[in-house]
Amino acid sequence: MSAVSMGASIPAGAADGLDAIMDHGGEGLRRRMERTERHLERVTAQAGAPLAAHANATIVAGGKRLRPLLVVLAAESAGGPPETPEGEERLVRAAVAVELVHSATLVHDDLIDGALLRRGHPTVAAVAGRRVAVATGDLLFSRAFAELARNRDAAQLRALSRASSALAEGELLQREDAYAEHVPVERYLRRCELKTAALFDAACRLGALTAVKGSSALADALGAFARRIGLAFQMLDDVLDVSGPVERTGKSRGTDLLDGTVTLPFILARTREPELAAFKLDSLRGAAGHEKVEALCERIAATGALEEAREQALAVVAEAKAALPAILPDGRSVLLGLVADAVVERYR
Amino acid sequence: MSAVSMGASIPAGAADGLDAIMDHGGEGLRRRMERTERHLERVTAQAGAPLAAHANATIVAGGKRLRPLLVVLAAESAGGPPETPEGEERLVRAAVAVELVHSATLVHDDLIDGALLRRGHPTVAAVAGRRVAVATGDLLFSRAFAELARNRDAAQLRALSRASSALAEGELLQREDAYAEHVPVERYLRRCELKTAALFDAACRLGALTAVKGSSALADALGAFARRIGLAFQMLDDVLDVSGPVERTGKSRGTDLLDGTVTLPFILARTREPELAAFKLDSLRGAAGHEKVEALCERIAATGALEEAREQALAVVAEAKAALPAILPDGRSVLLGLVADAVVERYR
Repeated sequence: MSAVSMGASIPAGAADGLDAIMDHGGEGLRRRMERTERHLERVTAQAGAPLAAHANATIVAGGKRLRPLLVVLAAESAGGPPETPEGEERLVRAAVAVELVHSATLVHDDLIDGALLRRGHPTVAAVAGRRVAVATGDLLFSRAFAELARNRDAAQLRALSRASSALAEGELLQREDAYAEHVPVERYLRRCELKTAALFDAACRLGALTAVKGSSALADALGAFARRIGLAFQMLDDVLDVSGPVERTGKSRGTDLLDGTVTLPFILARTREPELAAFKLDSLRGAAGHEKVEALCERIAATGALEEAREQALAVVAEAKAALPAILPDGRSVLLGLVADAVVERYR
Repeated sequence: MSAVSMGASIPAGAADGLDAIMDHGGEGLRRRMERTERHLERVTAQAGAPLAAHANATIVAGGKRLRPLLVVLAAESAGGPPETPEGEERLVRAAVAVELVHSATLVHDDLIDGALLRRGHPTVAAVAGRRVAVATGDLLFSRAFAELARNRDAAQLRALSRASSALAEGELLQREDAYAEHVPVERYLRRCELKTAALFDAACRLGALTAVKGSSALADALGAFARRIGLAFQMLDDVLDVSGPVERTGKSRGTDLLDGTVTLPFILARTREPELAAFKLDSLRGAAGHEKVEALCERIAATGALEEAREQALAVVAEAKAALPAILPDGRSVLLGLVADAVVERYR
């Protein structure tokens, strides 16, 4: 249950994070999120049978729509879109474009990881093979830019293409650093920025750019806020990978480590326990890896590294929220603050 | 050697197709193609070590740069770019963006096909694995849009995103039709349009849109010209897949058929020989497929289907060339006509 802060008008425990925002965001927010949803459905339907069949599970069937929510909230925080049908359309297109890039990444990630399920649905790669998964992801990327191009705003397109490049660079950086136990924390944070924070940044930036008061300075400030939230989101996700439990995360503990991916809990644990500093991730390769990694997760947890990582993430969120009033002095920042809380809430 | 038509000023046999165009295109063309080349190098270098290492073989090391050439020639046919450094930059960015999308597709295609070599260089997938290949392709897509976004022209971005969507849809259509021997010729042509012609179209369209006289009507007309050239290009490529020889194509005969992909020669051969109409591509699956497909290629060739397919492609090229004088009455169409010839020349 949610323990909402920010002196909000929402009673603690009234609803889970994002639901609470929808409940208290007003009619405009609800309508815009519903239009985003219908627009996403249209995009997949337009692309014809292959995409409709394959991408449905990834796009239409689910997801928290956290990134579109950031787009809409950022726009509303910046005075809302112009009060015309086209103004509303532009906002919805921006929200759709961000979610399409996110979905493209998920399809390609599932392919890469050989994942069979995503949000309880079979992945495109599992159902249709890697050939279709590659093409479906490419199509989703292309559609994202096609949607956003209709807004006729180069700044918006730059924001999305920068984020989309960052996502791919983050994946490449992760491969480059695979099995490198000594990766410094700065490099880990850089990877989180690329893989997660950049698209959060773009979401808020795009929202601001579609709004009547969305100056580029405000877009920068909201982007910086969202970047921190995205960073914390990834840091907490990495804590969950080590802490489990399986029932909560839907995947076995230590999947990142098994994959050679060094994350914050491991980095911190290595500084806390000399024996761990000598641990070779290579030793997890092979059939016995799944059992060994469980023990490694326990050792990491025993050092207190999970708490430290969690605290670092919470500090990033607190920092982001503290900056909000200066960005949005008129108090429209409450709902964005709630998004920050919702991100933390997932991991409580 | 090239036998250039179009009553051109280029002596027949003087040089191979595209080289002849470079030799006779004037200093402006050469300078713009060189700038495109350097810009492509910069894009890969900027992206840092991972991309620089992995994409180099695909982008920098080679390719005929046919699509950037179409961009530049279309721009020059439409009055050239504005005579400012920024005008030249915009043209080069458009050429770079088209080549980046093409390169992204190659990286992903090689991954899908499990290809080890491309243009004599090891593929990204072969060197670095599918994970890096997926991300490298995604990065190239993203960079393409990032480059083009700098031109601040929504029409250009729409053209590129439409082509990029088409490429992915073509791949999905090909998967959907795999092992469907009865695929009608219209559907085959539609696939060629999506997989190849759409990006040719975008190349000429983008060139026109960066030029001083590049009205949207002219962009449409040049795009339609390029679309036909692209269609012929793909049809002839599909003839080569059946005709070989290996020394010329660098791949064994019938790779498309082995993959379940029905192309024009097979479609035509089926109408010419009743026994072939009963042939099941499924029978090529398994270890003996490579030998069986060689025999199938011979049977297709024996029907005369290769000549018919080649003639159909040449008719498409002739049609495209015949339309040029009406599009570009001032005679600037000669070099574009030579590109059409060069496409045919590859297959003589």
